[in-house]
Amino acid sequence: MSEHGAGASDALYIGVDLGGSTVRGGLVDAEGRILRELSLQTESERADDLFRQLTELVTQLHQDPEGHDRIRAVGIGLPGLVNSGTHQVVVLPNLPDLSSIDLYGEVKRMTGLPVVLDNDANAAAYGELLSGAGRGSRNLFYVSIGTGVGAGIILDGRVWRGATGYAAEFGHMTIDPDGIECACGNIGCLETVASEPNIVRRTRERLFRDRTSSLSRLVIPRDREFTCADIAAAAAGGDDMAQLIMDRTAMYLGVALAGVINLLNVESVVIGGGVMAAGDTLLQPIIEHTRSRAFQPAFDACRITADQLGASAGVVGAALLARDEA
Amino acid sequence: MSEHGAGASDALYIGVDLGGSTVRGGLVDAEGRILRELSLQTESERADDLFRQLTELVTQLHQDPEGHDRIRAVGIGLPGLVNSGTHQVVVLPNLPDLSSIDLYGEVKRMTGLPVVLDNDANAAAYGELLSGAGRGSRNLFYVSIGTGVGAGIILDGRVWRGATGYAAEFGHMTIDPDGIECACGNIGCLETVASEPNIVRRTRERLFRDRTSSLSRLVIPRDREFTCADIAAAAAGGDDMAQLIMDRTAMYLGVALAGVINLLNVESVVIGGGVMAAGDTLLQPIIEHTRSRAFQPAFDACRITADQLGASAGVVGAALLARDEA
Repeated sequence: MSEHGAGASDALYIGVDLGGSTVRGGLVDAEGRILRELSLQTESERADDLFRQLTELVTQLHQDPEGHDRIRAVGIGLPGLVNSGTHQVVVLPNLPDLSSIDLYGEVKRMTGLPVVLDNDANAAAYGELLSGAGRGSRNLFYVSIGTGVGAGIILDGRVWRGATGYAAEFGHMTIDPDGIECACGNIGCLETVASEPNIVRRTRERLFRDRTSSLSRLVIPRDREFTCADIAAAAAGGDDMAQLIMDRTAMYLGVALAGVINLLNVESVVIGGGVMAAGDTLLQPIIEHTRSRAFQPAFDACRITADQLGASAGVVGAALLARDEA
Repeated sequence: MSEHGAGASDALYIGVDLGGSTVRGGLVDAEGRILRELSLQTESERADDLFRQLTELVTQLHQDPEGHDRIRAVGIGLPGLVNSGTHQVVVLPNLPDLSSIDLYGEVKRMTGLPVVLDNDANAAAYGELLSGAGRGSRNLFYVSIGTGVGAGIILDGRVWRGATGYAAEFGHMTIDPDGIECACGNIGCLETVASEPNIVRRTRERLFRDRTSSLSRLVIPRDREFTCADIAAAAAGGDDMAQLIMDRTAMYLGVALAGVINLLNVESVVIGGGVMAAGDTLLQPIIEHTRSRAFQPAFDACRITADQLGASAGVVGAALLARDEA
């Protein structure tokens, strides 16, 4: 990595992935290898509490004995839009209102290091590109299907952030023009049908209409609601209705991914997030629906795979974005 | 334009726009100004006839007295996919099968000049960016709504062609997952509802169901079918059903454009093509539907306008792409 200057091979970077329920951070080398990783549960929904937890984690990594004077920069990924000009958080729908705090300025003052703030899915996309499922690609679309649907776009080896830093809002692409309302104000967003809570909602609604379905007889422990993992397990076990729900979910995702492949002609699509714990039960139908929805030459030029870095993708990617900046 | 070398201010470029019914060509200077423009109707559906007409037009421009030794390169836009590595036409659905002819090689041999072959909408996008409605933008999405729906993407001032040259297949984005079949094999493509023939088809189907509609009483000359222009005129004149058809068309386009704005965060969307002769009757509803479908900060960062170069956009853009190559 000689382009990063003398001593770059010793250099380490702090990567942080700020989530709704977990803050995860790591010390990462210039090749994207994690030397140490920490994670903690968020304690409250107040912005100042979350900010305190974040700074504690960064401080802990910054004072790591491995780190010495080797840490060169801090990268932070968060589930919102970051204005690439001002470094300020503009929209942060799934977290306490951190937009009232100057995260960029505060972490910079605290550590004395260069700081990069970016969307968490941009960071994860970059991590998968350089250290994960996308190695060798120059053009990659990363999507994470979990509580929400996040995405990151890599074009010519770099994160594509758009004119003002708001690109890759994949979860709010309209998938059903006459569908249900989304928190964003639109109707029929991908997120309203394909995020984990919405897959469960769709299943529940179907069960309500059809109580004879095999899924309603599934043994779900009485002390919890059923989850996507339950539906995926039922589908893998041959349950008709669970398979239908998974297939329809895959269709929605296939329509949206085919749109991305048609527009951007990327060579790699990498799919991660909690819902993808379903593995091939969901990945294979997604690939099939994408194939039937995409323009064939563009589909043929693209490889669709599961992610490799899992929950660490954001940490690795944020650190590598910080590396580029340092 | 000093980056194009000494004497570049004298330099001229041949730009050609190869369409289904018209071949248009021009001599264009390095600033994108047209010095001379020719167009001719295509005579037959045979590839060799079309190729002969194309070469006649290029020869005529090449021998133009204005041209002398000033012509530096030839750019050709055509309605298909061009493999950016091999320069060969891969898919050309709306023209005689020119993919059997080595256009790139033939024109290069014939003129002795560098040749650039690109998708016609890519060329038009580049023309509008540098000489039309997109001047001053770095990131632009161009869409042409006519017999088909074509599009070109400009990112950071350059045409985005994707990993293999197949990007910007906007017309084949799925807009209605349970819609009607498209020639491409998919179901519910934007083109199946928003191209000129499909707007007419939708209107006709509606008239068939509802013969009391005012549109059925429109005075259409008996010697022709009605066109998009008739529907737009009826809508502008206050006809309920025509307004409904235009509004629904605008909704389809708004859904698709909002998807592009959400994904790419471009600062400019430029809309051209025959259907846009309807002017504000269609443009304003498109803007409103896009606003209600897009992620707000991304929408606010984007300007949506009509094109400025009209049918010459492809000629200007093809010439400027050739300029960059020369």
